[in-house]
Amino acid sequence: MKITFLGTSAGLPTKERNTQTTVLDLNPVYNEYWLIDVGEAAQHRILNTNIKLGKLTTILITHLHGDHIFGLPGLLTSRSFQGGEGKPLQVIGPKGIKQYIETTLAVSASHLNYPLDIIELEGDENQLLIHDITVSVRLLEHGIPSYGYRLQFPDKEGSLKQQSLQEAGIEPGPIYKAFKTQDVVDYNGVIYTTAHFKEPAERGKVITFFGDTMPAASEAQLADQADVIVHECTYLEGDHELSHKYYHSHIADVMQLAVSSSVKMTLLNHVSNRYTKEDIEVLMRRLQDEHPEFTFRIAEDYMCYEL
Amino acid sequence: MKITFLGTSAGLPTKERNTQTTVLDLNPVYNEYWLIDVGEAAQHRILNTNIKLGKLTTILITHLHGDHIFGLPGLLTSRSFQGGEGKPLQVIGPKGIKQYIETTLAVSASHLNYPLDIIELEGDENQLLIHDITVSVRLLEHGIPSYGYRLQFPDKEGSLKQQSLQEAGIEPGPIYKAFKTQDVVDYNGVIYTTAHFKEPAERGKVITFFGDTMPAASEAQLADQADVIVHECTYLEGDHELSHKYYHSHIADVMQLAVSSSVKMTLLNHVSNRYTKEDIEVLMRRLQDEHPEFTFRIAEDYMCYEL
Repeated sequence: MKITFLGTSAGLPTKERNTQTTVLDLNPVYNEYWLIDVGEAAQHRILNTNIKLGKLTTILITHLHGDHIFGLPGLLTSRSFQGGEGKPLQVIGPKGIKQYIETTLAVSASHLNYPLDIIELEGDENQLLIHDITVSVRLLEHGIPSYGYRLQFPDKEGSLKQQSLQEAGIEPGPIYKAFKTQDVVDYNGVIYTTAHFKEPAERGKVITFFGDTMPAASEAQLADQADVIVHECTYLEGDHELSHKYYHSHIADVMQLAVSSSVKMTLLNHVSNRYTKEDIEVLMRRLQDEHPEFTFRIAEDYMCYEL
Repeated sequence: MKITFLGTSAGLPTKERNTQTTVLDLNPVYNEYWLIDVGEAAQHRILNTNIKLGKLTTILITHLHGDHIFGLPGLLTSRSFQGGEGKPLQVIGPKGIKQYIETTLAVSASHLNYPLDIIELEGDENQLLIHDITVSVRLLEHGIPSYGYRLQFPDKEGSLKQQSLQEAGIEPGPIYKAFKTQDVVDYNGVIYTTAHFKEPAERGKVITFFGDTMPAASEAQLADQADVIVHECTYLEGDHELSHKYYHSHIADVMQLAVSSSVKMTLLNHVSNRYTKEDIEVLMRRLQDEHPEFTFRIAEDYMCYEL
């Protein structure tokens, strides 16, 4: 799978960073794309990639601030002309997303040529199952409802150790399926514990996309032992209090969350335009030197991360 | 004054052409900018120019199709942070523009820090006076209400011929103002016809911005003797009937309008993505050779025209 950042700015677009849009390419698990937030000009950014809007099946909106949703009407309408015809799309987001989409499409006399399903989240906790991916959604702290989405992919059964099976006199056949899927198998009157004949099960990947937030109690649940978290870092230095006053995170907050939650990789986005590219490089190096336990990258537009 | 094209595509953005946005720089008449339509990513295009959003005073929306308005919410909200604080802005457009702006701002919890006045047009004809510019608005033919805006700048009094006045024994003083502003002046008991002492009055510029339209009766009024018209040309070749079926214009329609209305310069935008840059160059040269009476340019993004 691959995460591509198409917008990493905070609030306003700059020449280098667009407003928030992140792409999850689920290939090879599924041959489809998901988007997390759709900042203005997301469709323009997509024109510079190989991403096909026809393969976009799911859009997760973290919250309704303009820098996270103003590209949605254009993307939805353009999808009709760019391979989306007849291909269903679902948009999941906070209450209000339905009114926003329906009003903008109605006022602009836009007609989509594919089924659009809009799912509004309410309350503090939601759980969705998309294919076999469990999506846990938790409310964060951002002044307006802002959600984090934890995607838990199913565990993969360990592959069979063919040689061990044959050494035990168990010949290939339908019985192998039982060895793969059951803990215990009765074969020719012998009871086998199958773990001995399998590689260990592979834990399903966990990827969590956070909406804008100041530190919140629900974050630990969302981040727990994740392979990757994508988190805002509007404030890269200076006073924590200031970042919290604006309901945003300081990079030290995110580090604390990631380290205490045993997160393998933290990808940071939503970078304030007060920092130059050089500032960011210096800050990254310093943080990495001082905290080798924190594995992170600060995203730039078009950056890809494979997992 | 200067017209700058920041989006010249039809319907969808391409790598080269953004959706519709045109800037009128009124300098030196007024130190301000007007926008005609605001396609998605208009604010991104503006980042690549010297245009200051704080000096943007008026937005004319021709019609509510997405490729003409989806950049409006982002531009309005960004203006708060880009020199617009406290500086009034007016948006003029078809009925529905108010609901669109108010819903998008409310859903996204956006707060503008400047007064925003939204004026909705209704019916076939509207006339507005902005400063001393008469703005005549007429309904076109586009399936949904689409307007053309004719901007008539006031005539300029001819300057005084100082030498002629002094040869006639009329010495500089307050009386010169009377010679400049009146047709007839009584000076020391002599009645003077002032035309003799003035350069001819300079006709005020006329600039007309058309919304998307198929040929419509109202177009001739809007174009009549204009210095510049800005008009769509979605169809550059082929069948007229097809263009009209989609409520759009064929370039031959625009040529007919411009020539019969004695338009000095026609700037064509809203170019379909079916034409390559090379196609357009060939078509332009052929049309210019066959119809030297038609003075036109096909706009590209960032093209400027001074008048």
